Amino acid sequence: MSSIDALLRPKSIAVVGASKTAGKVGYEVLHNLVTGGYPGTIVPVNPTCDEIAGLKCCHSLRDYRGKIDLSVIAIPTALVLKAVEDSLKAGAGAVCVISAGFKETGKEGAELEKKIAQTCSSKGACLLGPNCLGLLNTHKSMNASFAKHMPDKGGISVISQSGALCTAILDMAAERHMGLAHLISMGNKADLDEADFIRAFRNDEETKVIVGYLESIGSGNDFIKAAEATSGVKPIVMLKSGVTAAGGKAASSHTGSLAGADIAYGSAFHRAGIVRAETFEQLFDCATAFSMQPLPRGKRVAIITNAGGPGIMAADAAELAGLQITTLAEYSATALRSKLPAAASVGNPIDVLGDADPERYVTAVRAAREDTEIDAIVVILTPQAMTKPTETARAIAGESDGTKPILVSFMGGKDVVPGRAELVAAGLPDYPSPERAVAVLKAMCDYSEWLSRPMRIVTRFAVNRHRVERIIHRDMRSGIMQLGEAEAKSILAAYGFTVLPGRLAADAEEAITYSEKIGFPIAMKIASPDIIHKSDTGGVKLNLRTPGEVEDAFDLMMLRIKRKMPEARINGVYIERMCNPGREIILGMTRDPQFGPMLMFGLGGIFVEVMKDVTFHIAPITGDEAMRMLEQTKSYGLLKGVRGQSSVDMQAIANALQRISQLVTDFPMIAEMDINPFVVGKVGEDSVAADARITLANS
Amino acid sequence: MSSIDALLRPKSIAVVGASKTAGKVGYEVLHNLVTGGYPGTIVPVNPTCDEIAGLKCCHSLRDYRGKIDLSVIAIPTALVLKAVEDSLKAGAGAVCVISAGFKETGKEGAELEKKIAQTCSSKGACLLGPNCLGLLNTHKSMNASFAKHMPDKGGISVISQSGALCTAILDMAAERHMGLAHLISMGNKADLDEADFIRAFRNDEETKVIVGYLESIGSGNDFIKAAEATSGVKPIVMLKSGVTAAGGKAASSHTGSLAGADIAYGSAFHRAGIVRAETFEQLFDCATAFSMQPLPRGKRVAIITNAGGPGIMAADAAELAGLQITTLAEYSATALRSKLPAAASVGNPIDVLGDADPERYVTAVRAAREDTEIDAIVVILTPQAMTKPTETARAIAGESDGTKPILVSFMGGKDVVPGRAELVAAGLPDYPSPERAVAVLKAMCDYSEWLSRPMRIVTRFAVNRHRVERIIHRDMRSGIMQLGEAEAKSILAAYGFTVLPGRLAADAEEAITYSEKIGFPIAMKIASPDIIHKSDTGGVKLNLRTPGEVEDAFDLMMLRIKRKMPEARINGVYIERMCNPGREIILGMTRDPQFGPMLMFGLGGIFVEVMKDVTFHIAPITGDEAMRMLEQTKSYGLLKGVRGQSSVDMQAIANALQRISQLVTDFPMIAEMDINPFVVGKVGEDSVAADARITLANS
Repeated sequence: MSSIDALLRPKSIAVVGASKTAGKVGYEVLHNLVTGGYPGTIVPVNPTCDEIAGLKCCHSLRDYRGKIDLSVIAIPTALVLKAVEDSLKAGAGAVCVISAGFKETGKEGAELEKKIAQTCSSKGACLLGPNCLGLLNTHKSMNASFAKHMPDKGGISVISQSGALCTAILDMAAERHMGLAHLISMGNKADLDEADFIRAFRNDEETKVIVGYLESIGSGNDFIKAAEATSGVKPIVMLKSGVTAAGGKAASSHTGSLAGADIAYGSAFHRAGIVRAETFEQLFDCATAFSMQPLPRGKRVAIITNAGGPGIMAADAAELAGLQITTLAEYSATALRSKLPAAASVGNPIDVLGDADPERYVTAVRAAREDTEIDAIVVILTPQAMTKPTETARAIAGESDGTKPILVSFMGGKDVVPGRAELVAAGLPDYPSPERAVAVLKAMCDYSEWLSRPMRIVTRFAVNRHRVERIIHRDMRSGIMQLGEAEAKSILAAYGFTVLPGRLAADAEEAITYSEKIGFPIAMKIASPDIIHKSDTGGVKLNLRTPGEVEDAFDLMMLRIKRKMPEARINGVYIERMCNPGREIILGMTRDPQFGPMLMFGLGGIFVEVMKDVTFHIAPITGDEAMRMLEQTKSYGLLKGVRGQSSVDMQAIANALQRISQLVTDFPMIAEMDINPFVVGKVGEDSVAADARITLANS
Repeated sequence: MSSIDALLRPKSIAVVGASKTAGKVGYEVLHNLVTGGYPGTIVPVNPTCDEIAGLKCCHSLRDYRGKIDLSVIAIPTALVLKAVEDSLKAGAGAVCVISAGFKETGKEGAELEKKIAQTCSSKGACLLGPNCLGLLNTHKSMNASFAKHMPDKGGISVISQSGALCTAILDMAAERHMGLAHLISMGNKADLDEADFIRAFRNDEETKVIVGYLESIGSGNDFIKAAEATSGVKPIVMLKSGVTAAGGKAASSHTGSLAGADIAYGSAFHRAGIVRAETFEQLFDCATAFSMQPLPRGKRVAIITNAGGPGIMAADAAELAGLQITTLAEYSATALRSKLPAAASVGNPIDVLGDADPERYVTAVRAAREDTEIDAIVVILTPQAMTKPTETARAIAGESDGTKPILVSFMGGKDVVPGRAELVAAGLPDYPSPERAVAVLKAMCDYSEWLSRPMRIVTRFAVNRHRVERIIHRDMRSGIMQLGEAEAKSILAAYGFTVLPGRLAADAEEAITYSEKIGFPIAMKIASPDIIHKSDTGGVKLNLRTPGEVEDAFDLMMLRIKRKMPEARINGVYIERMCNPGREIILGMTRDPQFGPMLMFGLGGIFVEVMKDVTFHIAPITGDEAMRMLEQTKSYGLLKGVRGQSSVDMQAIANALQRISQLVTDFPMIAEMDINPFVVGKVGEDSVAADARITLANS
């Protein structure tokens, strides 16, 4: 039995801290195991009792003769380490520490927590928690938590970084009769984290969909790997909180861990095929549909309604979400027209009229289901005078055959409650408003699209890696972490970028000599580790055409920079052949603490600075993904060319992004880099890295 | 008694089509009036019965001796007109036609509907419907509809263009115990529409908040006037459907009326202080809070929670909505620190910990309520082991004193249901997720801000209105509806715009003569009613500096345009002094069918064409509103100047928008106009209408 198996499907469980006093955590856990009908061996552990809840009590696991799989520990913090050691001695493959008082309380607690984790891992055991609610496995009738509700058996497995949210989820599940498989409260995640459970649930037969609430992520790369592999098999829906400064602040004071930037999470979730829920309600709105209904093959939605208004609401929501409200195929429309009353609309929405009986709903649902031009169906019911919600629910349920997703919105309250229960029992997800049903359908479409994405093939370009190694090692040995234009360009050239002939000149005389060698017109740029925005300080002169102009430019540049930034260290000026005109692009990379290198793309100048029109993507990036980075900016139209201009060389930009991706993956000590501007020409012309800077860091 | 009073608060009601057969609309209406406890006189009207439901029946209102206030008609379409005439003869001040078969069925029905409306108005009576559900007034115990639920008495008055939605709302109200005042199903709105009811509810004491569902609006101006006046007294929350092409298509096939463009509705709602709900759920989420709680004075929110995760969710949502999560004042924090356990957080969110009892919640709510740096409070509860939801609800309710809004989110299901009921009973709105509570708070803040907006003062500039009158009338008499550059500029000049000296030249010779008179450099632009995008067809030449250049430009222009657009009628070329360089702006106006003139602002070129970065506003516009149009674009930063550039003359743009506003308000026959570009200089420089076109229409 693997250690995660010992946690999720133990044959025997010790409850360390089992108590006779109701209200105590140790009492609740034991009580929940017993009343939940756990069929395995339960071993209450308490130094002063001989028997609890009719079970023989063990005074200490040190003395226990049998073997336990899982040890659930709920005792004062100071005693936990000893209890863990005893549990391992009794053969525990998994330990769940419910007790709090660890990392969340400060440095001392963090050290104790680390020690406990090490103790477990040294024996090959896994650790859940500490500072958690415990866990449940409905299909094994195991409630090893101190939350009292045992949910119905079902296909939703939940992992949560908030224990309180677990109780809210269980309480909600009890009301909605939402079936769960596993529920895991991860607590401080000293050992097991989201990636481990995502991996474990991948092959868990009972789990149809994985639902997660996260405040932070342990290892970004491991998470992406686990999630990407699992998303290919079953959907993962996640709510990530702490997305704003206010939320993030709350997160760091709450969990003691640094929350990653939201943009990196967005990129990582997208890459891994994770369905991202924006709100708590959406998390379970999605989970329900994903666990009950098949995925749509496309975005064409038929809306069936007994009321015009809600039909319009649904159509609005669908269109805003990017779904398609297409007309039915002619054969469906004809069939419907012959079966529905004359006043009914066989367009889309299909209006079965206010007095629709169950049979009329069936007719419409069947037509949409059999229509090859429809991918998904949203059924809306309002409780009007003639409406029979319960019978209609039953009738619609009979039409759900797993070929296309059917989502339902029974609007109203009192009158539709029994119908809602019928729907849920029959595996039809029901939502209180059409907009919520449509939002879920959109998530299903997105996931379906992700599943059929092209294979991710990261191109490896032939590059001169050794040359870059030499440059970077030399610089790092000398403590140079901020690479100037000349060196940054040498690195880029080694990775296949076009850079223009150029040299660093120490004085005016050298500047003239180099200019003549390179050939006029030339550009002159200040070379200083202290000046990042060169043009703002008068550090850029373009289109110099004669030796005289070069001399003038040099003297003026030195004069002005001395005035503006007297402290700046000056290495000279960089003399470079003038670049042909083209569209200026900014390409860059910054490292996210969780997910590593994030590539950036944006049109130069005001598009980045004023319009904030940029896109990000986690490296390594494929050609398709690079192209999508371009397409996702609003200014993409400018690249394609407006008013008869021809398109710029998109492929050149996409290639540049891939080469940066390769460079920063090869060299993790590159902490940040910018190519600004990357001047891209039309197809067939050269595209040039016209300026660049690279920052190194000891990793 | 006014006619609307006769509808909303009748002392006697006739039910035309009253029936003994359950299921018939006439039966249901009579039955609902009787069982609802309506205290006034009820007169069943049926040609063949003498008594229904214990009430003496009248065979025809023509023979009725008494006086009725309201006549509710539910009989076959063909008989309705006669019944309306009889009702009016019996003194009815109001008629409600439930029967369908009118405008929604086609031309014939529309004519009958019109006739009925005219018949009513000729007697000074008002008409509700036809094709509606009827109406309710809970405070008068009047259910004059065929919807069976009589809701609790309350402060929410609902008007709906969808009858089916009314039934869903009533069903929901029954489940949530949401109290209503009036509920009006407006049907086809042959006479009474949303504006009438908004006016009527303004002074209705029982109505605390007006909730509306609209698919279209009768008269845009009347609606804005009524809503603006009423919003100053009590909040209006509206859901407008048909906002997208798909939804709009559904709307027009459903209601037979043209739905206005969504952007115009947005602008109109904003102007009138209407709180816009995006979804059906949000409509009632807002209504509940607005009817129960005071408005916040600012945007500073305190979040109180017994669980970290949901606190972060709330903080995220608040920050994304533009609310402020500020720290408590020092005195509050100190007080809280002394009263809460050491592990509790007295930051914001305030974490009262998982084992919080009701008293701890009270302590926290009281501190936030008494803190002058907090404007609103969101209280979150998750049902953990020690949580007492019901007692906590009661305790929090005791702290709600009407000084600051308190919104609550009891998360979960089964365990918190009794607590939820306590909250609602005590006037505390409760939401199933923190995000929904925050969304409502945001709406309350927006409304509160609207209430304290500066007075709307529309500036009237001194202009030469007569001159414009002459130009427009001359053109319209000659059937010229598309005004060329020269005339458009004459009109703009008369309204105070700076235009450059220019003249229309018929041939090259004239072009040279005028150029010399005006002075070089000059610009030459094609003058043709058939060419709108002049530069795309080679119809613009700039910076011509000599007679020779003018001649060359003229010949080339004629040659190329003949080639590209051989059919285009050419009036010559417009010769104009070259404009000083400046920032190019596009100003424009288009008429919305519902709301009339919509002013447009955007930065020229790609900002409009590619980035779609434009704002709209309904005319007439104030100076403040014009300035806000600029601020709301993303490219606003460019106007202010980036990287040390100085700002352009914002006031010049705002003035230009106000002058356009005045022009198009003075001349309703101006259907469309563009000033493209409006070249704006720095403060102190001239801003010039460099090109313009105006389209007229017979209105």
